[in-house]
Amino acid sequence: MEGQPHPYAPTDLELPGYVPNFLTQFTIVSVYGLSSLLVVSLIWILSGRSRKLAKIDRLLMCWWAFTGLTHLILEGYFAFSPEFYKDKTAHYLAEVWKEYSKGDSRYAARDAATVTVEGLTAVLEGPASLLAVYAIASGKSYSYILQFSVSLGQLYGTAVYFLTAYLEGDHFAASSYHYYVYYIGANASWVLIPSLVAIRCWNKICSAVQVQGQKKTKSH
Amino acid sequence: MEGQPHPYAPTDLELPGYVPNFLTQFTIVSVYGLSSLLVVSLIWILSGRSRKLAKIDRLLMCWWAFTGLTHLILEGYFAFSPEFYKDKTAHYLAEVWKEYSKGDSRYAARDAATVTVEGLTAVLEGPASLLAVYAIASGKSYSYILQFSVSLGQLYGTAVYFLTAYLEGDHFAASSYHYYVYYIGANASWVLIPSLVAIRCWNKICSAVQVQGQKKTKSH
Repeated sequence: MEGQPHPYAPTDLELPGYVPNFLTQFTIVSVYGLSSLLVVSLIWILSGRSRKLAKIDRLLMCWWAFTGLTHLILEGYFAFSPEFYKDKTAHYLAEVWKEYSKGDSRYAARDAATVTVEGLTAVLEGPASLLAVYAIASGKSYSYILQFSVSLGQLYGTAVYFLTAYLEGDHFAASSYHYYVYYIGANASWVLIPSLVAIRCWNKICSAVQVQGQKKTKSH
Repeated sequence: MEGQPHPYAPTDLELPGYVPNFLTQFTIVSVYGLSSLLVVSLIWILSGRSRKLAKIDRLLMCWWAFTGLTHLILEGYFAFSPEFYKDKTAHYLAEVWKEYSKGDSRYAARDAATVTVEGLTAVLEGPASLLAVYAIASGKSYSYILQFSVSLGQLYGTAVYFLTAYLEGDHFAASSYHYYVYYIGANASWVLIPSLVAIRCWNKICSAVQVQGQKKTKSH
Protein backbone atom coordinates (compact mmCIF):
# COMPACT_ATOMS: atom_id res chain seq x y z
CA MET A 1 0.00 0.00 0.00
CA GLU A 2 2.89 2.44 -0.68
CA GLY A 3 0.88 4.37 -3.27
CA GLN A 4 2.16 6.93 -5.73
CA PRO A 5 3.86 10.22 -4.85
CA HIS A 6 1.26 12.95 -4.29
CA PRO A 7 1.25 16.42 -5.86
CA TYR A 8 0.36 18.24 -2.63
CA ALA A 9 2.30 20.62 -0.39
CA PRO A 10 4.11 20.21 1.93
CA THR A 11 5.94 17.34 0.22
CA ASP A 12 6.60 15.53 3.52
CA LEU A 13 2.83 15.02 3.97
CA GLU A 14 2.26 11.28 4.16
CA LEU A 15 -0.67 9.88 2.18
CA PRO A 16 -0.15 6.11 1.93
CA GLY A 17 -2.32 4.61 -0.79
CA TYR A 18 -2.71 7.87 -2.71
CA VAL A 19 -4.15 7.41 -6.21
CA PRO A 20 -3.78 10.35 -8.67
CA ASN A 21 -6.67 12.07 -10.45
CA PHE A 22 -8.31 10.23 -13.33
CA LEU A 23 -10.24 13.25 -14.61
CA THR A 24 -8.65 16.46 -15.88
CA GLN A 25 -9.17 19.80 -14.18
CA PHE A 26 -11.25 20.86 -17.20
CA THR A 27 -13.63 17.90 -16.82
CA ILE A 28 -13.99 18.33 -13.05
CA VAL A 29 -14.71 22.06 -13.30
CA SER A 30 -17.03 21.62 -16.31
CA VAL A 31 -19.21 19.02 -14.58
CA TYR A 32 -19.56 21.27 -11.51
CA GLY A 33 -20.14 24.37 -13.66
CA LEU A 34 -22.72 22.75 -15.92
CA SER A 35 -24.61 21.04 -13.07
CA SER A 36 -24.73 24.34 -11.22
CA LEU A 37 -25.93 26.14 -14.34
CA LEU A 38 -28.66 23.54 -14.74
CA VAL A 39 -29.82 23.96 -11.12
CA VAL A 40 -29.75 27.76 -11.32
CA SER A 41 -31.63 27.81 -14.66
CA LEU A 42 -34.27 25.44 -13.33
CA ILE A 43 -34.89 27.55 -10.22
CA TRP A 44 -34.89 30.76 -12.28
CA ILE A 45 -37.48 29.38 -14.74
CA LEU A 46 -39.72 27.75 -12.12
CA SER A 47 -39.65 30.79 -9.82
CA GLY A 48 -40.56 32.98 -12.81
CA ARG A 49 -44.03 31.44 -12.81
CA SER A 50 -44.88 33.15 -9.54
CA ARG A 51 -46.00 36.77 -9.81
CA LYS A 52 -45.35 37.36 -6.13
CA LEU A 53 -41.60 36.86 -6.39
CA ALA A 54 -39.38 39.86 -7.16
CA LYS A 55 -36.22 39.39 -9.22
CA ILE A 56 -34.04 39.68 -6.12
CA ASP A 57 -36.01 36.86 -4.46
CA ARG A 58 -35.56 34.66 -7.53
CA LEU A 59 -31.83 35.40 -7.63
CA LEU A 60 -31.55 34.53 -3.93
CA MET A 61 -33.43 31.26 -4.52
CA CYS A 62 -30.87 30.40 -7.23
CA TRP A 63 -28.01 31.17 -4.83
CA TRP A 64 -29.52 29.09 -2.00
CA ALA A 65 -30.19 26.12 -4.28
CA PHE A 66 -26.65 26.27 -5.70
CA THR A 67 -24.91 26.74 -2.34
CA GLY A 68 -27.18 24.21 -0.58
CA LEU A 69 -26.45 21.45 -3.10
CA THR A 70 -22.74 22.30 -3.02
CA HIS A 71 -22.76 22.02 0.79
CA LEU A 72 -24.77 18.80 0.85
CA ILE A 73 -23.23 16.90 -2.04
CA LEU A 74 -19.63 18.12 -2.46
CA GLU A 75 -18.85 19.08 1.13
CA GLY A 76 -21.04 16.32 2.57
CA TYR A 77 -19.06 13.73 0.61
CA PHE A 78 -15.76 15.18 1.85
CA ALA A 79 -16.83 15.37 5.49
CA PHE A 80 -17.63 11.66 5.62
CA SER A 81 -14.97 10.26 3.22
CA PRO A 82 -11.64 10.30 5.03
CA GLU A 83 -10.03 8.10 2.37
CA PHE A 84 -11.13 9.90 -0.81
CA TYR A 85 -7.50 10.30 -1.92
CA LYS A 86 -7.19 6.50 -2.23
CA ASP A 87 -10.17 6.24 -4.59
CA LYS A 88 -9.47 4.06 -7.65
CA THR A 89 -12.91 4.26 -9.25
CA ALA A 90 -12.72 7.81 -10.66
CA HIS A 91 -15.68 8.68 -8.41
CA TYR A 92 -16.50 12.25 -9.39
CA LEU A 93 -16.64 13.59 -5.82
CA ALA A 94 -13.32 11.97 -4.88
CA GLU A 95 -11.86 13.57 -8.02
CA VAL A 96 -13.13 16.99 -6.93
CA TRP A 97 -11.34 16.78 -3.59
CA LYS A 98 -8.16 15.24 -5.02
CA GLU A 99 -8.02 18.23 -7.36
CA TYR A 100 -9.00 20.85 -4.75
CA SER A 101 -6.38 19.50 -2.31
CA LYS A 102 -3.78 21.00 -4.67
CA GLY A 103 -4.99 24.36 -3.41
CA ASP A 104 -5.24 23.18 0.22
CA SER A 105 -3.66 19.88 1.21
CA ARG A 106 -5.42 20.00 4.60
CA TYR A 107 -8.31 18.28 2.81
CA ALA A 108 -6.24 15.20 1.96
CA ALA A 109 -4.44 15.42 5.33
CA ARG A 110 -7.78 15.40 7.19
CA ASP A 111 -6.96 18.51 9.23
CA ALA A 112 -9.37 18.73 12.16
CA ALA A 113 -10.41 22.37 11.64
CA THR A 114 -11.08 21.78 7.93
CA VAL A 115 -13.14 18.64 8.58
CA THR A 116 -15.06 20.44 11.35
CA VAL A 117 -15.93 23.43 9.19
CA GLU A 118 -16.90 21.24 6.22
CA GLY A 119 -18.92 18.92 8.47
CA LEU A 120 -20.88 21.78 10.05
CA THR A 121 -21.40 23.34 6.62
CA ALA A 122 -22.67 20.10 5.08
CA VAL A 123 -24.88 18.94 7.95
CA LEU A 124 -26.34 22.26 9.15
CA GLU A 125 -25.98 24.81 6.35
CA GLY A 126 -26.72 22.41 3.48
CA PRO A 127 -30.29 21.54 4.51
CA ALA A 128 -30.84 25.08 5.87
CA SER A 129 -29.92 26.56 2.47
CA LEU A 130 -32.48 24.37 0.71
CA LEU A 131 -35.04 25.36 3.34
CA ALA A 132 -34.24 28.98 2.42
CA VAL A 133 -35.28 28.30 -1.21
CA TYR A 134 -38.65 27.08 0.08
CA ALA A 135 -38.95 29.90 2.65
CA ILE A 136 -38.40 32.61 0.04
CA ALA A 137 -40.77 30.94 -2.45
CA SER A 138 -43.57 30.71 0.10
CA GLY A 139 -42.92 34.03 1.83
CA LYS A 140 -42.35 32.58 5.29
CA SER A 141 -41.83 35.01 8.15
CA TYR A 142 -38.61 33.19 9.09
CA SER A 143 -37.14 33.72 5.62
CA TYR A 144 -34.81 36.62 6.51
CA ILE A 145 -33.57 35.25 9.81
CA LEU A 146 -32.93 31.83 8.22
CA GLN A 147 -30.96 33.37 5.35
CA PHE A 148 -29.10 35.54 7.86
CA SER A 149 -28.23 32.50 10.02
CA VAL A 150 -26.85 30.47 7.12
CA SER A 151 -24.89 33.43 5.76
CA LEU A 152 -23.35 34.09 9.18
CA GLY A 153 -22.48 30.39 9.48
CA GLN A 154 -20.83 30.50 6.05
CA LEU A 155 -18.84 33.61 7.03
CA TYR A 156 -17.78 32.15 10.39
CA GLY A 157 -16.77 28.89 8.67
CA THR A 158 -14.73 30.71 6.03
CA ALA A 159 -13.05 32.81 8.76
CA VAL A 160 -12.06 29.65 10.70
CA TYR A 161 -10.93 28.02 7.45
CA PHE A 162 -8.60 30.88 6.44
CA LEU A 163 -7.36 31.81 9.93
CA THR A 164 -6.35 28.25 10.90
CA ALA A 165 -4.35 27.95 7.63
CA TYR A 166 -2.71 31.31 8.33
CA LEU A 167 -1.78 30.30 11.90
CA GLU A 168 -0.27 27.05 10.65
CA GLY A 169 1.99 28.75 8.13
CA ASP A 170 -0.23 29.00 5.03
CA HIS A 171 1.94 26.46 3.15
CA PHE A 172 -0.75 24.06 1.92
CA ALA A 173 -0.96 24.97 -1.78
CA ALA A 174 0.96 23.03 -4.43
CA SER A 175 1.68 26.20 -6.43
CA SER A 176 0.74 29.86 -6.41
CA TYR A 177 -1.66 29.11 -9.27
CA HIS A 178 -3.53 26.64 -7.03
CA TYR A 179 -3.29 29.02 -4.09
CA TYR A 180 -4.98 31.88 -5.90
CA VAL A 181 -7.41 29.98 -8.12
CA TYR A 182 -8.52 27.20 -5.73
CA TYR A 183 -7.82 28.37 -2.19
CA ILE A 184 -8.64 32.07 -2.66
CA GLY A 185 -10.73 32.11 -5.85
CA ALA A 186 -13.09 29.21 -5.14
CA ASN A 187 -13.81 30.51 -1.63
CA ALA A 188 -14.20 34.17 -2.50
CA SER A 189 -17.89 33.76 -3.46
CA TRP A 190 -18.57 32.36 0.02
CA VAL A 191 -17.21 35.54 1.57
CA LEU A 192 -18.73 38.05 -0.83
CA ILE A 193 -22.27 36.67 -1.32
CA PRO A 194 -22.98 35.74 2.33
CA SER A 195 -21.79 39.24 3.33
CA LEU A 196 -24.24 40.86 0.91
CA VAL A 197 -27.09 38.53 1.95
CA ALA A 198 -26.38 39.07 5.66
CA ILE A 199 -26.36 42.87 5.28
CA ARG A 200 -29.63 42.78 3.31
CA CYS A 201 -31.33 40.56 5.92
CA TRP A 202 -29.98 42.67 8.79
CA ASN A 203 -31.54 45.78 7.21
CA LYS A 204 -34.85 44.05 6.42
CA ILE A 205 -35.11 42.74 9.99
CA CYS A 206 -34.24 46.09 11.57
CA SER A 207 -36.90 47.87 9.55
CA ALA A 208 -39.52 45.23 10.46
CA VAL A 209 -38.65 45.55 14.16
CA GLN A 210 -38.78 49.34 13.90
CA VAL A 211 -42.22 49.28 12.27
CA GLN A 212 -43.49 46.94 14.99
CA GLY A 213 -41.99 49.24 17.66
CA GLN A 214 -43.76 52.27 16.20
CA LYS A 215 -47.04 50.36 16.03
CA LYS A 216 -46.72 49.40 19.72
CA THR A 217 -45.95 52.98 20.70
CA LYS A 218 -49.03 54.22 18.81
CA SER A 219 -51.31 51.69 20.48
CA HIS A 220 -50.24 52.91 23.96
CA MET B 1 15.30 27.46 29.35
CA GLU B 2 14.39 23.83 30.12
CA GLY B 3 11.51 24.84 32.41
CA GLN B 4 9.65 22.66 34.82
CA PRO B 5 7.58 19.58 33.92
CA HIS B 6 4.03 20.66 33.03
CA PRO B 7 0.80 19.15 34.44
CA TYR B 8 -0.97 18.95 31.07
CA ALA B 9 -2.05 16.04 28.89
CA PRO B 10 -0.69 14.50 26.74
CA THR B 11 2.58 14.27 28.72
CA ASP B 12 4.71 14.37 25.55
CA LEU B 13 3.49 17.91 24.83
CA GLU B 14 6.59 20.11 24.79
CA LEU B 15 6.36 23.43 26.59
CA PRO B 16 9.91 24.70 27.05
CA GLY B 17 10.09 27.43 29.67
CA TYR B 18 6.86 26.42 31.40
CA VAL B 19 6.36 28.06 34.80
CA PRO B 20 3.73 26.53 37.16
CA ASN B 21 0.75 28.39 38.61
CA PHE B 22 1.43 30.82 41.45
CA LEU B 23 -2.22 31.24 42.44
CA THR B 24 -4.47 28.43 43.67
CA GLN B 25 -7.54 27.28 41.78
CA PHE B 26 -9.65 28.82 44.57
CA THR B 27 -8.06 32.26 44.15
CA ILE B 28 -8.32 32.19 40.35
CA VAL B 29 -11.98 31.15 40.36
CA SER B 30 -12.88 33.55 43.17
CA VAL B 31 -11.42 36.60 41.42
CA TYR B 32 -13.35 35.73 38.23
CA GLY B 33 -16.53 34.94 40.16
CA LEU B 34 -16.43 38.09 42.31
CA SER B 35 -15.54 40.40 39.40
CA SER B 36 -18.39 38.92 37.39
CA LEU B 37 -20.77 39.30 40.32
CA LEU B 38 -19.72 42.95 40.62
CA VAL B 39 -20.35 43.61 36.92
CA VAL B 40 -23.70 41.81 36.96
CA SER B 41 -24.85 43.63 40.12
CA LEU B 42 -23.85 46.98 38.72
CA ILE B 43 -25.76 46.42 35.46
CA TRP B 44 -28.76 45.06 37.35
CA ILE B 45 -28.90 48.09 39.66
CA LEU B 46 -28.29 50.70 36.98
CA SER B 47 -30.79 49.12 34.56
CA GLY B 48 -33.39 49.08 37.36
CA ARG B 49 -33.57 52.88 37.16
CA SER B 50 -35.23 52.71 33.76
CA ARG B 51 -38.98 52.04 33.76
CA LYS B 52 -38.93 51.01 30.11
CA LEU B 53 -36.80 47.92 30.70
CA ALA B 54 -38.50 44.61 31.51
CA LYS B 55 -36.82 42.14 33.82
CA ILE B 56 -35.84 39.92 30.91
CA ASP B 57 -34.09 42.87 29.21
CA ARG B 58 -32.19 43.62 32.41
CA LEU B 59 -31.14 39.97 32.76
CA LEU B 60 -29.98 39.96 29.15
CA MET B 61 -27.98 43.15 29.74
CA CYS B 62 -26.26 41.40 32.67
CA TRP B 63 -25.45 38.41 30.47
CA TRP B 64 -24.08 40.55 27.64
CA ALA B 65 -21.92 42.61 29.99
CA PHE B 66 -20.56 39.46 31.66
CA THR B 67 -19.92 37.53 28.44
CA GLY B 68 -18.58 40.61 26.61
CA LEU B 69 -16.00 41.36 29.30
CA THR B 70 -15.05 37.66 29.48
CA HIS B 71 -14.52 37.63 25.69
CA LEU B 72 -12.56 40.88 25.64
CA ILE B 73 -10.41 40.51 28.73
CA LEU B 74 -9.89 36.77 29.36
CA GLU B 75 -10.12 35.47 25.80
CA GLY B 76 -8.54 38.61 24.32
CA TYR B 77 -5.50 38.11 26.56
CA PHE B 78 -5.21 34.46 25.52
CA ALA B 79 -5.57 35.16 21.79
CA PHE B 80 -2.63 37.55 21.78
CA SER B 81 -0.38 35.95 24.44
CA PRO B 82 1.23 32.85 22.90
CA GLU B 83 3.72 32.55 25.78
CA PHE B 84 1.38 32.86 28.76
CA TYR B 85 2.60 29.52 30.15
CA LYS B 86 6.08 30.99 30.64
CA ASP B 87 4.79 33.88 32.77
CA LYS B 88 6.81 34.41 35.97
CA THR B 89 4.96 37.44 37.30
CA ALA B 90 1.77 35.72 38.56
CA HIS B 91 -0.15 37.87 36.04
CA TYR B 92 -3.78 36.99 36.79
CA LEU B 93 -4.76 36.34 33.15
CA ALA B 94 -1.75 34.08 32.56
CA GLU B 95 -2.75 32.21 35.74
CA VAL B 96 -6.28 31.71 34.39
CA TRP B 97 -5.03 30.06 31.19
CA LYS B 98 -2.33 28.02 32.93
CA GLU B 99 -5.10 26.64 35.12
CA TYR B 100 -7.69 26.18 32.34
CA SER B 101 -5.12 24.36 30.17
CA LYS B 102 -5.44 21.48 32.66
CA GLY B 103 -8.87 20.95 31.15
CA ASP B 104 -7.68 21.53 27.57
CA SER B 105 -3.95 21.59 26.86
CA ARG B 106 -4.60 22.94 23.35
CA TYR B 107 -4.51 26.38 24.99
CA ALA B 108 -0.92 25.97 26.14
CA ALA B 109 -0.04 24.12 22.91
CA ARG B 110 -1.39 27.01 20.81
CA ASP B 111 -3.62 24.77 18.68
CA ALA B 112 -4.66 26.70 15.55
CA ALA B 113 -8.41 25.97 15.83
CA THR B 114 -8.48 27.01 19.51
CA VAL B 115 -6.57 30.24 18.85
CA THR B 116 -8.81 31.01 15.85
CA VAL B 117 -12.04 30.52 17.80
CA GLU B 118 -10.76 32.53 20.78
CA GLY B 119 -9.44 35.25 18.49
CA LEU B 120 -12.74 35.64 16.64
CA THR B 121 -14.63 35.54 19.94
CA ALA B 122 -12.44 38.22 21.53
CA VAL B 123 -12.20 40.57 18.56
CA LEU B 124 -15.72 40.31 17.09
CA GLU B 125 -18.03 38.95 19.79
CA GLY B 126 -16.45 40.84 22.71
CA PRO B 127 -17.21 44.37 21.44
CA ALA B 128 -20.50 43.18 19.87
CA SER B 129 -21.66 41.85 23.27
CA LEU B 130 -21.01 45.20 24.92
CA LEU B 131 -22.85 46.90 22.06
CA ALA B 132 -25.78 44.58 22.86
CA VAL B 133 -25.92 45.99 26.43
CA TYR B 134 -26.27 49.47 24.95
CA ALA B 135 -28.71 48.32 22.22
CA ILE B 136 -31.07 46.74 24.76
CA ALA B 137 -30.85 49.72 27.12
CA SER B 138 -31.71 52.18 24.38
CA GLY B 139 -34.25 49.99 22.56
CA LYS B 140 -32.43 49.99 19.23
CA SER B 141 -34.14 48.29 16.29
CA TYR B 142 -30.98 46.21 15.69
CA SER B 143 -31.07 44.84 19.24
CA TYR B 144 -32.51 41.40 18.39
CA ILE B 145 -30.48 40.78 15.25
CA LEU B 146 -27.29 41.85 17.05
CA GLN B 147 -27.98 39.52 19.99
CA PHE B 148 -28.85 36.75 17.54
CA SER B 149 -25.60 37.27 15.59
CA VAL B 150 -23.39 37.13 18.67
CA SER B 151 -25.24 34.08 20.04
CA LEU B 152 -24.87 32.25 16.74
CA GLY B 153 -21.17 33.16 16.67
CA GLN B 154 -20.78 31.80 20.21
CA LEU B 155 -22.56 28.57 19.24
CA TYR B 156 -20.53 28.13 16.06
CA GLY B 157 -17.32 28.81 17.98
CA THR B 158 -18.21 26.28 20.68
CA ALA B 159 -19.10 23.70 18.01
CA VAL B 160 -15.71 24.17 16.31
CA TYR B 161 -14.01 24.05 19.71
CA PHE B 162 -15.57 20.73 20.75
CA LEU B 163 -15.56 19.04 17.32
CA THR B 164 -11.88 19.72 16.60
CA ALA B 165 -10.96 18.23 20.02
CA TYR B 166 -13.15 15.21 19.30
CA LEU B 167 -11.56 14.66 15.85
CA GLU B 168 -8.09 14.88 17.37
CA GLY B 169 -8.77 12.21 19.99
CA ASP B 170 -10.22 14.20 22.90
CA HIS B 171 -7.14 13.55 25.05
CA PHE B 172 -6.31 17.06 26.18
CA ALA B 173 -7.49 17.01 29.82
CA ALA B 174 -5.09 16.32 32.69
CA SER B 175 -7.76 14.32 34.60
CA SER B 176 -11.43 13.50 34.32
CA TYR B 177 -12.06 16.12 37.03
CA HIS B 178 -10.52 18.78 34.78
CA TYR B 179 -12.32 17.34 31.76
CA TYR B 180 -15.78 17.65 33.29
CA VAL B 181 -15.34 20.78 35.38
CA TYR B 182 -13.19 22.92 33.06
CA TYR B 183 -13.65 21.58 29.53
CA ILE B 184 -17.34 20.66 29.76
CA GLY B 185 -18.57 22.66 32.77
CA ALA B 186 -17.00 26.03 32.01
CA ASN B 187 -18.19 25.91 28.40
CA ALA B 188 -21.71 24.65 29.07
CA SER B 189 -23.08 28.15 29.76
CA TRP B 190 -21.87 29.24 26.31
CA VAL B 191 -23.95 26.51 24.71
CA LEU B 192 -27.06 26.83 26.88
CA ILE B 193 -27.47 30.62 27.15
CA PRO B 194 -26.69 31.50 23.50
CA SER B 195 -29.20 28.79 22.44
CA LEU B 196 -31.92 30.35 24.58
CA VAL B 197 -31.06 33.89 23.45
CA ALA B 198 -30.94 32.84 19.77
CA ILE B 199 -34.34 31.11 19.97
CA ARG B 200 -35.88 34.13 21.67
CA CYS B 201 -34.47 36.55 19.07
CA TRP B 202 -35.53 34.26 16.19
CA ASN B 203 -39.10 34.29 17.50
CA LYS B 204 -39.16 38.05 18.12
CA ILE B 205 -37.82 38.71 14.62
CA CYS B 206 -40.29 36.33 12.95
CA SER B 207 -43.22 37.96 14.67
CA ALA B 208 -41.99 41.46 13.71
CA VAL B 209 -41.61 40.38 10.06
CA GLN B 210 -45.05 38.76 10.14
CA VAL B 211 -46.68 41.93 11.49
CA GLN B 212 -44.97 44.00 8.79
CA GLY B 213 -46.10 41.49 6.14
CA GLN B 214 -49.73 41.73 7.31
CA LYS B 215 -49.54 45.50 7.30
CA LYS B 216 -48.26 45.48 3.71
CA THR B 217 -51.03 43.10 2.63
CA LYS B 218 -53.63 45.38 4.21
CA SER B 219 -52.27 48.48 2.50
CA HIS B 220 -52.56 46.83 -0.94
